[in-house]
Amino acid sequence: MASKVSTAPPRGMRDILPQEVELRDLATQEILGVYRSYGFRRIETPALESLRLLASSESGENEKLIFKVLKRGEELETALASGARDLADLGLRFDLTVPLARYYAENHARLPDPLKAIQVGPVWRAERPQKGRFRQFTQCDIDTLGVKSAVAEIELILATCDALSRLQLRDLIVRINDRRLLAAIARHCGFDETRQASFFIAFDKLEKIGADGVVGELRETRHDPGAVARFEALLPALQKHELPADVLGADGGEALESLETIIRTANQDIAGAARVQLDPTLVRGMGYYTGTIFEISSPAFPSSIAGGGRYDRMVGKLLGREVPACGFSIGFERLVAILTERREAGAPLAAEARAAARRIALLVDESAAADLAPALAAARALREAGDLVSLEIRRRNVGRQLDDLERHGFWGYAVCEGPGAPSVKSLTRTRERR
Amino acid sequence: MASKVSTAPPRGMRDILPQEVELRDLATQEILGVYRSYGFRRIETPALESLRLLASSESGENEKLIFKVLKRGEELETALASGARDLADLGLRFDLTVPLARYYAENHARLPDPLKAIQVGPVWRAERPQKGRFRQFTQCDIDTLGVKSAVAEIELILATCDALSRLQLRDLIVRINDRRLLAAIARHCGFDETRQASFFIAFDKLEKIGADGVVGELRETRHDPGAVARFEALLPALQKHELPADVLGADGGEALESLETIIRTANQDIAGAARVQLDPTLVRGMGYYTGTIFEISSPAFPSSIAGGGRYDRMVGKLLGREVPACGFSIGFERLVAILTERREAGAPLAAEARAAARRIALLVDESAAADLAPALAAARALREAGDLVSLEIRRRNVGRQLDDLERHGFWGYAVCEGPGAPSVKSLTRTRERR
Repeated sequence: MASKVSTAPPRGMRDILPQEVELRDLATQEILGVYRSYGFRRIETPALESLRLLASSESGENEKLIFKVLKRGEELETALASGARDLADLGLRFDLTVPLARYYAENHARLPDPLKAIQVGPVWRAERPQKGRFRQFTQCDIDTLGVKSAVAEIELILATCDALSRLQLRDLIVRINDRRLLAAIARHCGFDETRQASFFIAFDKLEKIGADGVVGELRETRHDPGAVARFEALLPALQKHELPADVLGADGGEALESLETIIRTANQDIAGAARVQLDPTLVRGMGYYTGTIFEISSPAFPSSIAGGGRYDRMVGKLLGREVPACGFSIGFERLVAILTERREAGAPLAAEARAAARRIALLVDESAAADLAPALAAARALREAGDLVSLEIRRRNVGRQLDDLERHGFWGYAVCEGPGAPSVKSLTRTRERR
Repeated sequence: MASKVSTAPPRGMRDILPQEVELRDLATQEILGVYRSYGFRRIETPALESLRLLASSESGENEKLIFKVLKRGEELETALASGARDLADLGLRFDLTVPLARYYAENHARLPDPLKAIQVGPVWRAERPQKGRFRQFTQCDIDTLGVKSAVAEIELILATCDALSRLQLRDLIVRINDRRLLAAIARHCGFDETRQASFFIAFDKLEKIGADGVVGELRETRHDPGAVARFEALLPALQKHELPADVLGADGGEALESLETIIRTANQDIAGAARVQLDPTLVRGMGYYTGTIFEISSPAFPSSIAGGGRYDRMVGKLLGREVPACGFSIGFERLVAILTERREAGAPLAAEARAAARRIALLVDESAAADLAPALAAARALREAGDLVSLEIRRRNVGRQLDDLERHGFWGYAVCEGPGAPSVKSLTRTRERR
């Protein structure tokens, strides 16, 4: 090695320490337990997808954030020699929805119909790094493919709220809307139908830049001034979650009816753990949504914890026949940040208490390898009783070693000297006695 | 989308269906349970590492198989404009050992000393795809950093054998050797000390190309003819796992003593689940090993299931002070192939029986969304009793739907019509009655 290599992880990415991994694993297990109980099953796709697939997915901004993988061997030589700029053929996935659509189109004949899929895994986005935002992060999605009925939405909402409740998140608010309702609003105001996407993009910024900001952006992007004025007049009602009756056409009316069914049915079943409510200002960023959209937040924490919606046309584009699809994605890093904050405030998860086994250090001498049998037997016996047992070499300064063990979450220790079962002592009590 | 996008996963990578994911998850949980009981704790590093780190890791062939990630933004423009070929700055990790060394060097102050780490995760190698070999695959490693004593080797061997035994792999053979013993053999024969790596590379091929092949390669790569002849004369003894006394120098003698301690102690504790034995012909491919090396195989299956060894110098190169390190890696894809084969032969895992919950479909009408409350209540009650319950839309051809459900692993079903708890029926018994 010529010069010293940096040991920092790549920019915007991070190493996860054992204590945080343990919290993440517990949260994942709780969520998976709930999702499985609803009949969802885990699937896996590769981290890499073809750039062609990723770039044709109507995924908005995400398509600009792809980590691209260089071609290899002859293909790279050819690309370089031709001076062309298509040096990459694969990209790291930026979400789990586009890979799921490809997976379903490829494997549908061998999959259950409908497919109720769980995906938990990392995704990558080359975003400018900032606090709480990483270039590799975990998503935790459930999706139902093959169900047109609102039964799919209801199950997704219930399962996601149940999973978050299991992690002791309280007073959840599920805001729900429908892209067809948004389209009806756009039509009612008189926006150009061919520029609906641009209207949605501006409207989506309402929380960030306020009503004036949105109206300003609509004017700047040269939408019809009359349409913008009508929208400006309508906005206060929408922000109060009201939908004047004359706004809806036939499509909008159908969407509203479906939303009302979902809201009523879900609220009845959730019974207090969460509240589902119509929010006609909810837009969400992705271009591929076709119907219901939803987001979950908790008043105790800013920004949403989970989001999703219906995307009935994505699979069809790959498969050649339409397959209705709907999904809900938990922002896992956001969730872990909340759980960490709460743990630091002294309120650990119920699951942490359930999972807690005694972590015990069996101290042996450096030279003990030749006569380790009694220590190994003692370790086996403790493990069979449910303890986590680690053989540790006894240091010269045992007092400090015990402090270190306690700091790193060990419950107790025992010193192995000669035959016979060593006696296990609590580290806290030992410290208090010293 | 201009033309149809392929739905196949990238070359050499694969989609994993629910049934296989379930087997993988079970195997992972069993292994993690054992590893945790030995005091190991899971850590995580990003999938991407800097190319500088990966390329300076003495990882032999693996360094040639890196998936490289294109630079982004201005950096890419600069690289392209300068006509340089350093278009990439990051690479997908090809193993979990190099990232672990970087992780330890970066985070050691916040980590337990010693660190006993578990890593389970995907790695990527751009190998020519072939049967059973993938370009993305999972590794499952345990490593102990900070322990010089053979206690580390003993714990790694016991934990790995226990984990594989838990998955009902029987008659495990742990072949063990020491790089210092191999060095002593090279020295005894008279090979050039500066070309030891090349001697190891040829010797490593013994199983693949036989004694004649190895001797041939040593001649072709122009090692000293006298050394090659002495080695040729020694080989039959080595293949019988014998080590003539005169071969070992002081270093070799120390290594042999350490190996004998490990073998005796581990065999005594394992008590029949596995057998540890000296194999002076075991070499292993990586350049970074410094002491003990080991591999596990099972007579029922060709090729090894797990491998590892001691690499006392890797962390030191990054950190500036030596940190002894030793690890054992389970080839997870190999293991899953064995478990799948066995399941198909009608011998499922004990863990599968333990984990088996009843998967039940509650059939509701397409139009039922508005009146789903009784079905949702029934589903909740069954879930609380431990069943996995999926709401499914009733199809016109219910007989065929029930067949499909059974084929995809459902245990039973119930039809939800009106209020009152629906009665759950076994799918098998329903089929038998038809």
